[in-house]
Amino acid sequence: MTNKHIQGFSKLSKEGKIEWIANTFSTYPEETIQILSSFWQTDRACQKVFDGFSENTISNFHLPYGIAPNFLIDGEFYAVPMVIEESSVVAAAASAAKYWSVRGGIKTEILGTTKIGQVSFKWSGSKTILEQHFEQIKTAMIAEVGEITLNMNKRGGGILDIALVDLSKDVDQVYQIKASFETCDSMGANFINTCLEQFAVTLKQYAINHLSQSGDLEVVMCILSNYTDGCVVKAYVECPVEELKVPGDDNNHVDLSEKFKTAVDIAIADPYRAVTHNKGIFNGIDAVVLATGNDFRAIEASGHAYASRTGQYRSLSTCTIQDGIFRFELELPLAVGTVGGLTKLHPLAKLSLEILDNPSASQLMSIIAATGLAQNFAALKSLVTTGIQRGHMKMHLQNILNQLEATEEENATIVSTIGEQQISYTSVRKMIEDMRTTV
Amino acid sequence: MTNKHIQGFSKLSKEGKIEWIANTFSTYPEETIQILSSFWQTDRACQKVFDGFSENTISNFHLPYGIAPNFLIDGEFYAVPMVIEESSVVAAAASAAKYWSVRGGIKTEILGTTKIGQVSFKWSGSKTILEQHFEQIKTAMIAEVGEITLNMNKRGGGILDIALVDLSKDVDQVYQIKASFETCDSMGANFINTCLEQFAVTLKQYAINHLSQSGDLEVVMCILSNYTDGCVVKAYVECPVEELKVPGDDNNHVDLSEKFKTAVDIAIADPYRAVTHNKGIFNGIDAVVLATGNDFRAIEASGHAYASRTGQYRSLSTCTIQDGIFRFELELPLAVGTVGGLTKLHPLAKLSLEILDNPSASQLMSIIAATGLAQNFAALKSLVTTGIQRGHMKMHLQNILNQLEATEEENATIVSTIGEQQISYTSVRKMIEDMRTTV
Repeated sequence: MTNKHIQGFSKLSKEGKIEWIANTFSTYPEETIQILSSFWQTDRACQKVFDGFSENTISNFHLPYGIAPNFLIDGEFYAVPMVIEESSVVAAAASAAKYWSVRGGIKTEILGTTKIGQVSFKWSGSKTILEQHFEQIKTAMIAEVGEITLNMNKRGGGILDIALVDLSKDVDQVYQIKASFETCDSMGANFINTCLEQFAVTLKQYAINHLSQSGDLEVVMCILSNYTDGCVVKAYVECPVEELKVPGDDNNHVDLSEKFKTAVDIAIADPYRAVTHNKGIFNGIDAVVLATGNDFRAIEASGHAYASRTGQYRSLSTCTIQDGIFRFELELPLAVGTVGGLTKLHPLAKLSLEILDNPSASQLMSIIAATGLAQNFAALKSLVTTGIQRGHMKMHLQNILNQLEATEEENATIVSTIGEQQISYTSVRKMIEDMRTTV
Repeated sequence: MTNKHIQGFSKLSKEGKIEWIANTFSTYPEETIQILSSFWQTDRACQKVFDGFSENTISNFHLPYGIAPNFLIDGEFYAVPMVIEESSVVAAAASAAKYWSVRGGIKTEILGTTKIGQVSFKWSGSKTILEQHFEQIKTAMIAEVGEITLNMNKRGGGILDIALVDLSKDVDQVYQIKASFETCDSMGANFINTCLEQFAVTLKQYAINHLSQSGDLEVVMCILSNYTDGCVVKAYVECPVEELKVPGDDNNHVDLSEKFKTAVDIAIADPYRAVTHNKGIFNGIDAVVLATGNDFRAIEASGHAYASRTGQYRSLSTCTIQDGIFRFELELPLAVGTVGGLTKLHPLAKLSLEILDNPSASQLMSIIAATGLAQNFAALKSLVTTGIQRGHMKMHLQNILNQLEATEEENATIVSTIGEQQISYTSVRKMIEDMRTTV
């Protein structure tokens, strides 16, 4: 057991790290070293950039970078870069984008761009005392954070509000400074956290100077909130019901809209369905979030919490059919940046933003929400018509055949032999091996 | 506007796709083509595998692949592969892993491995009729799905139960077949969806044969549920309070445990804090999910829905201090696979599983949950002591300096000049440009 742990791993060179991993955890160390290095960028300066993004880095994990063209969003055409390892997602987004591009396109609306940060602290004194001093505390905070907010103010952002929150009913003696911010085109995490840590310094000093007779004040922690329910976008499509046709199935188009709406209503009512439904939305969302160098964990956490804001986890999209008009809508929080973070540091993130015509953060919110809506539309359309399994298995079989380096002939033979059968990697490999032995 | 949309994009060759993107959306088409191709795998067969994972693929998006060593989980040491673009995450996981490796390590417990699938359908007749026929419908379903479940049954899995759910109070006439499955070491999506689509065929046929006098039955959709609240793992650490020391701060160790617990309690009580808190957990979770070729959107959706199961979105981790014992625990659903999907198709996913000693799906659940717990522990420890901002900015500055290809001298000068100042890409670039001009 002792050989599987190590002192000073982070201080080893990259080669040293790889060697230890290969020799300690791998049956074929040479092959392991070869695989890890085969994923390095050939440009060494570029590789150094990637190594610096994180710690103990030994290789790069590749995810497919694809394009979903023909997105008509608020009157402009976009080709949307998507990073995703799951098959059918890009094809689905592209298909829905094209479908809606001849039905008026996807429209969006920014409902807000405010972000939240919190300083949590314990206060042993009375709430009244805190409240009495709060205006002065606030004034001191804004004054002392002045230098930090200077540049953000110039860009039109900064601190919007500072409020006092009483959490003491739930957690003994705990209160919070809840500040809201406008961070313009940056996601804003660094700006907000820096402001909050300054607020904490001011708060502690104020307590020492003015509140020491009334109670003890201890700061617990300062950090932005990823629950950005004030930074929300809505995307929607609408058309007359009679235009909602499934190609090749023109006669019962009204049925499709009703069945589609039923599928959405089920995802609103049933959490077991809602989770899968929203997961499909995030297939589209995260693919663009990743491609543009944004943080998908933040987007996921906020979006799913938003889905549970009524007290039950529900669909983020809704569907109505009124006065002959079909309308399908998605609303969710999306705190993204188009400056700062990795947006300029990752060459493909930077390129993605260029392909999207260097959008503002709000425009990027619109593009991402539109992609999520398109994804959801395509998934539901497929689910209520042909089902999803046939397409999935076809894609999965092709992945296996590519991995096994099947020739075109082998590919054709196996596809026709398998037909609608269940497949596994092992069964397909056996088929190929049998074919190759026979030849 | 017309030149920004296209017919038949998916049918273009990879080169054709890249050319259209570069010429239509880029200011420097030549450079765009060069950047996209610089991220291709040099091994063409391997690149073909990546191209096949998704659609309209034109490049590979690189994410850093790093290692967090010294994870002692259920008595075994692991070096955990993590794929993440965010700085500090791998360092935090490694630091917490090491911290707990000398305090008994991280323990885990699998609370269940059951997965759910649903066939939603509309039924215009009475609920009683459906209920009366349900045992027969169930029997027919299990019989007719026999060939599909054969292999899974051999591996010890298969269908566990089939139940009827009445959703008609929420969505007019809607009922569901809710089936539960054991899918062993596979994530199970393809198996479950294939079973469900067969259930739907059986159900429709049964309705035609036996229920046509009593009402109309229409299948709306068949799909697995990503809400895997029956596939849940718990990970925890515990030690006497006096052993919970912050290095270099040995005298007030009791204070750390209390403050740590307060931080967790705040994340249980306050959704604004809970989202960020859980986001940190998923920083660790998703990094391993990605590295092992699993689907992080499914894991995220299920985990966050689980966080809202009480009717309010709350922390997934909990902390207790009882009888002098500090205990920190994480519980969440984690439906992952170690066979099928991309696990064998992506060379680095396959390698990650080898580095983890080719775990079963349950063992992988334990490893992932342990990483999430370690991540959360490190983040909270940092938040309640030094704060996170200083470390973040240091990492971010290094990223910018790497991107600008700063020499070691330039690096040292800028780090010492900047000190605690706020930085941006532009300001650092200007500093370097000034230095280079002066020289």
